[in-house]
Amino acid sequence: MPNIADLDTPAVLIDIDRVEANLARAQAHADKEGYALRPHIKTHKLPRFAKRQVELGAIGITAQKLGEAEVMADAGLTDIFLPYNILGARKLARLKALNDRVTLAVTADSPDTVAGYAETFTTGKPLTVLVECDSGGGRCGVQTPAQALALARHIQLSPGLRFGGLMTYPPLHGVEKSNAWLKEAVALFQQAGIAVPTVSSGNSPDMWSPAAAPVTERRPGTYIYYDRFQVKEQVASLDDCALTVLVTVVSRPTPTRIVIDASSKSLTSDLLTMEGYGLVMGTDLTIKGLSEEHGVIEMPAASDWPRVGERLRIIPNHACVISNLFDKVTLVSGDEVKETVPVAARGRVD
Amino acid sequence: MPNIADLDTPAVLIDIDRVEANLARAQAHADKEGYALRPHIKTHKLPRFAKRQVELGAIGITAQKLGEAEVMADAGLTDIFLPYNILGARKLARLKALNDRVTLAVTADSPDTVAGYAETFTTGKPLTVLVECDSGGGRCGVQTPAQALALARHIQLSPGLRFGGLMTYPPLHGVEKSNAWLKEAVALFQQAGIAVPTVSSGNSPDMWSPAAAPVTERRPGTYIYYDRFQVKEQVASLDDCALTVLVTVVSRPTPTRIVIDASSKSLTSDLLTMEGYGLVMGTDLTIKGLSEEHGVIEMPAASDWPRVGERLRIIPNHACVISNLFDKVTLVSGDEVKETVPVAARGRVD
Repeated sequence: MPNIADLDTPAVLIDIDRVEANLARAQAHADKEGYALRPHIKTHKLPRFAKRQVELGAIGITAQKLGEAEVMADAGLTDIFLPYNILGARKLARLKALNDRVTLAVTADSPDTVAGYAETFTTGKPLTVLVECDSGGGRCGVQTPAQALALARHIQLSPGLRFGGLMTYPPLHGVEKSNAWLKEAVALFQQAGIAVPTVSSGNSPDMWSPAAAPVTERRPGTYIYYDRFQVKEQVASLDDCALTVLVTVVSRPTPTRIVIDASSKSLTSDLLTMEGYGLVMGTDLTIKGLSEEHGVIEMPAASDWPRVGERLRIIPNHACVISNLFDKVTLVSGDEVKETVPVAARGRVD
Repeated sequence: MPNIADLDTPAVLIDIDRVEANLARAQAHADKEGYALRPHIKTHKLPRFAKRQVELGAIGITAQKLGEAEVMADAGLTDIFLPYNILGARKLARLKALNDRVTLAVTADSPDTVAGYAETFTTGKPLTVLVECDSGGGRCGVQTPAQALALARHIQLSPGLRFGGLMTYPPLHGVEKSNAWLKEAVALFQQAGIAVPTVSSGNSPDMWSPAAAPVTERRPGTYIYYDRFQVKEQVASLDDCALTVLVTVVSRPTPTRIVIDASSKSLTSDLLTMEGYGLVMGTDLTIKGLSEEHGVIEMPAASDWPRVGERLRIIPNHACVISNLFDKVTLVSGDEVKETVPVAARGRVD
């Protein structure tokens, strides 16, 4: 059986045993708490893992880009939520084609976005549209429950559209505030006599929080792999981290400096409020600096280890962005290489 | 003729008129000052631009990864410098195959790296090896001129290797110090009676500095496109920037907030000591925050402009890392679309 020692570096390793455990644990939590799990595939971009998530009980998947959703539909996924404002004639035509193939829902946070949907979906299968709510995240979304209600009514006026509910991306450490926002909104909809079929929230940092009305569905992504940031947020332990980057020590210019062949082009510059660009697995060492083709680690004291040519594994700050850099990843079990697979939905930028 | 208004976003636009002017201006400087230009292709990763650089007078190209060099060799480039420690049996076998096809040189900064080269190149065409010098950059490289001399002697002991000279990546704002280091080293080699065929230095930030002995060759990369960082470093003006990212305004949640469909996955989190993740072309607005699929711009005051669905062009902080994210880029002249081309050497991580 081939071993990771046989791989060229840098290489992305995915520990399939950890993946399986991470997926099962999250699904068990959803089942116990009684919310629907709709995993975000941005993290892995692999049809096989999307299928496995559904097999284990996920209600469907979440994709952020139309191109990613198309790849997943091609691979046989049948229920896809695209929580994004889809704009422009070309994208809207693709959206209509996709809606004919799978159970699809999108979001809107403005009359302009709804107008585009309405003009596109005049015939055929209607499009389900959820209203995106800014419940504190400061990104997209209507700003108040009253605006959410107004936009839902706007959606309902279009014969080709169906109001699907509310969606939010809750701020980090702000899930209670976010849930309160949604609760107020749902109460307003009830007063107005408008059913809210789905209330979709959630991400990996708040994944272990108990079910909280009115949320019916959560969309965590990173939990399949976890990463250094999720460990910092105490969502997982280092031993749960399933994605590592295998690197080679290419230089030991001084007794304390280690230079590795992973870089901003394999780890990204994402710091996510932390010190260092990733952790050397099995150590306390972090990567001090990244340039385009080198990573620099400074040891606290002079050391013969590691030597030039030795391999290290890096637990990245942010797993999702790694899947966006590599054309392929290697599935491993322990140190055994199982299979190298293309990252099918990588680079689907639009 | 198709127009950029017809493109899906996010899309990388390359202004070919600016590219041509940027290449010509750099080559004219090299010709006037009398150094050899060996452009780094990491920035564009496109064989057509590498060929154009050579056509205009470049002595050859620089590539940072074996995989990138292989793509360039396949495309017909014949003189390639790979300033990296190449380690491991698989990579060394690929290096030997590549050396048989093109005029190739690599670097080493340790006896371990030289040993790998020596064991691989026992027969056939010898490999040219330059000694990498840490002249202040704090990355790879021997630490002193005496170490450089010792390693060069080590290279000379191997029948399959040829000592090719010295290479450094000078620190930002430290080119004089770096040149002094190289000068001392070359003097030491002269005393020892060892010829130094090439002294390779240079990058885009110091590209307009006059020729300075003992440097014989420079390897700038970013100058083909420039970017916000190069403008900040006063190497170029905003009007020289040839790479922009075309984006769509997907949300205007508040009178001051603009959300665009470019993100850490299309612009990267590279800050390079600056505020904001890119500049909106034709404005003073910068991108305040990036998440994986959204960019957030805050206007200084409430504004109706831009509306949902409008297009903006972003001048990125760092052009090189953008070419590493997109499978294709679109060549434009003004607002006219000329051609969309695959980024042939993208994703060649090893």
